[in-house]
Amino acid sequence: MIEDKPTRTELSELGEFGLINHLASFARSENSSTLKGIGDDAAVIDCGDKAMVITTDLLVEGVHFDLSYMPFKHLGYKAVVVNLSDVYAMNAIPTQITVSLAMSNRFPLETMEELYQGIRMACDMYGVDLIGGDTSSSKHGLMISVTAVGFAPKEDIVYRSGAKENDLICVTGDLGAAYMGLQLLEREKQIFLENPEIQPDLEGNDYILERQLKPEAGKATILKLKELGIKPTAMIDVSDGLSSDLLHICDKSKVGCAIYSEKIPVDHLTYTVAESFNLDPTTCALNGGEDYELLFTISQADFEKIKDFKGISVIGHITNAESGKMFITNSNQAIELTAQGWNAMN
Amino acid sequence: MIEDKPTRTELSELGEFGLINHLASFARSENSSTLKGIGDDAAVIDCGDKAMVITTDLLVEGVHFDLSYMPFKHLGYKAVVVNLSDVYAMNAIPTQITVSLAMSNRFPLETMEELYQGIRMACDMYGVDLIGGDTSSSKHGLMISVTAVGFAPKEDIVYRSGAKENDLICVTGDLGAAYMGLQLLEREKQIFLENPEIQPDLEGNDYILERQLKPEAGKATILKLKELGIKPTAMIDVSDGLSSDLLHICDKSKVGCAIYSEKIPVDHLTYTVAESFNLDPTTCALNGGEDYELLFTISQADFEKIKDFKGISVIGHITNAESGKMFITNSNQAIELTAQGWNAMN
Repeated sequence: MIEDKPTRTELSELGEFGLINHLASFARSENSSTLKGIGDDAAVIDCGDKAMVITTDLLVEGVHFDLSYMPFKHLGYKAVVVNLSDVYAMNAIPTQITVSLAMSNRFPLETMEELYQGIRMACDMYGVDLIGGDTSSSKHGLMISVTAVGFAPKEDIVYRSGAKENDLICVTGDLGAAYMGLQLLEREKQIFLENPEIQPDLEGNDYILERQLKPEAGKATILKLKELGIKPTAMIDVSDGLSSDLLHICDKSKVGCAIYSEKIPVDHLTYTVAESFNLDPTTCALNGGEDYELLFTISQADFEKIKDFKGISVIGHITNAESGKMFITNSNQAIELTAQGWNAMN
Repeated sequence: MIEDKPTRTELSELGEFGLINHLASFARSENSSTLKGIGDDAAVIDCGDKAMVITTDLLVEGVHFDLSYMPFKHLGYKAVVVNLSDVYAMNAIPTQITVSLAMSNRFPLETMEELYQGIRMACDMYGVDLIGGDTSSSKHGLMISVTAVGFAPKEDIVYRSGAKENDLICVTGDLGAAYMGLQLLEREKQIFLENPEIQPDLEGNDYILERQLKPEAGKATILKLKELGIKPTAMIDVSDGLSSDLLHICDKSKVGCAIYSEKIPVDHLTYTVAESFNLDPTTCALNGGEDYELLFTISQADFEKIKDFKGISVIGHITNAESGKMFITNSNQAIELTAQGWNAMN
């Protein structure tokens, strides 16, 4: 006899991007005002003269954050900033957010207030209004869902899909620091769990800890690019890791790339701490996530305009699709870039 | 010795509306494009000619829904519709949504697909695009966060705050049905838990079950009001219960009200089932939530335009603030309306 058993596919079989791609088949994009649906840092809606971008991120306790070393104020702040980062990555200016919170009753009001102080701090820093949300109890743990909206003239919006052969690949700031900050916090947590009398030793590591606990979004870069009269051809924020995010640009733009190990900006402290963990600093910079720097491509003609601007590194160039997506080592070897992602590194 | 103990205030001490009011103190509303922040069915953002409204709702397993009788497809559908209802309550037309989902790995992919089928069904019914979201695992249970946006000419937006003395109070459809549907589902669940061999007896109760499991948002009403050339003076959707939601209009508009028991629309089945539960049908209509009907006020001059329109009941009128918020019984007694809310009824 043949049994008609219902199929059961484990979510883990698909992986994060597999799942997102699969669920995208349920998306609907039929209204003429929907300029861009799923598949970029934010969706884009036609508002007449202007375009509105909208993006949302969900942070779940035990999955995206660990309350044993993440202060509530920082958590609230970071939940906002990661969304603003997506708005800037569309070359738009964030203006409003909504925040929804589910919180178990093990938390008192004072905790929620700290969280909202952090949310408010981010709003004030970036000039963004907190205009709504929802609050609920939860049976277990804490969850924060933030939606951010922003605006730009329609022609200013930058997608992941616009990179062209010979464009220069640029990245702001430095990479791998947030990942090393996380490693440090995780290590001190383990030591504490094994021996609660030992106090965490985090001294001298403020920079990488701040990169993990108090990241910044790309406001300064976006304003600077506007001032310099540069519109990137493609852009994404570095949330999953340089490799993974650059591959998104290549896939959406149907191009290849070549980036150079020696050009990838790594802070001195990131370098030192990575080595103390026996990790290769460049690997951390390639695959460490949560840096929230901006990765973008510009036409070669714009190189003169940015070459003296500190805080932007040209790390390579866009090639044709057939040339592949390449990472060039210091010894001039070309290695295929893979989307290892920072989750895979843990 | 005086100990400096940190204060701990339980969230339950404040209650839902107390908490919302408290958290509103962290809101920020400084950008000129923010036309309305917290305090209505949706926030309103200036987009040039048009206004955009944005609203968000969070549904948490074990708090807002019970998977033992809520099919996933209905859950996805309802999560969308409750947000669209808020957009219509601003007299705007919803156009796009984002959906974020946190789901424990006890659920297979097929469950997530059912959920998205329901989401898509609601999108198709209301002509709304699904343009983004986020997907995450969770340590426990299922959470859905939906954000809906919609548009209207700026002058068409209706707030809770516009009701004027002598305006007529109108409500669409009938009330209390979703609440009675919930009672029925809860009763059959208890019977099943006590004796799993007894099959649920839900026959003949389709109408109230559908009102609970598959509510509709006020699209038809909004289109009809536009066709009739009526702009309500104030509007809200009936999600917490008629009393509670009418009190919101009165508070925001700084007015009183008088509604008449005999005028409150209650479906025949709601009436019968309420009586079988030894509940007063009018109390269910006043305090039962989740009907997602529209409650609005219109100028008396507009009465002629709607009086023949089935599906809208005039249930009373707005008074001055000093006259209080009154419920007039069938025996002509005036009782102060209280915001019991449907949660309190459980």
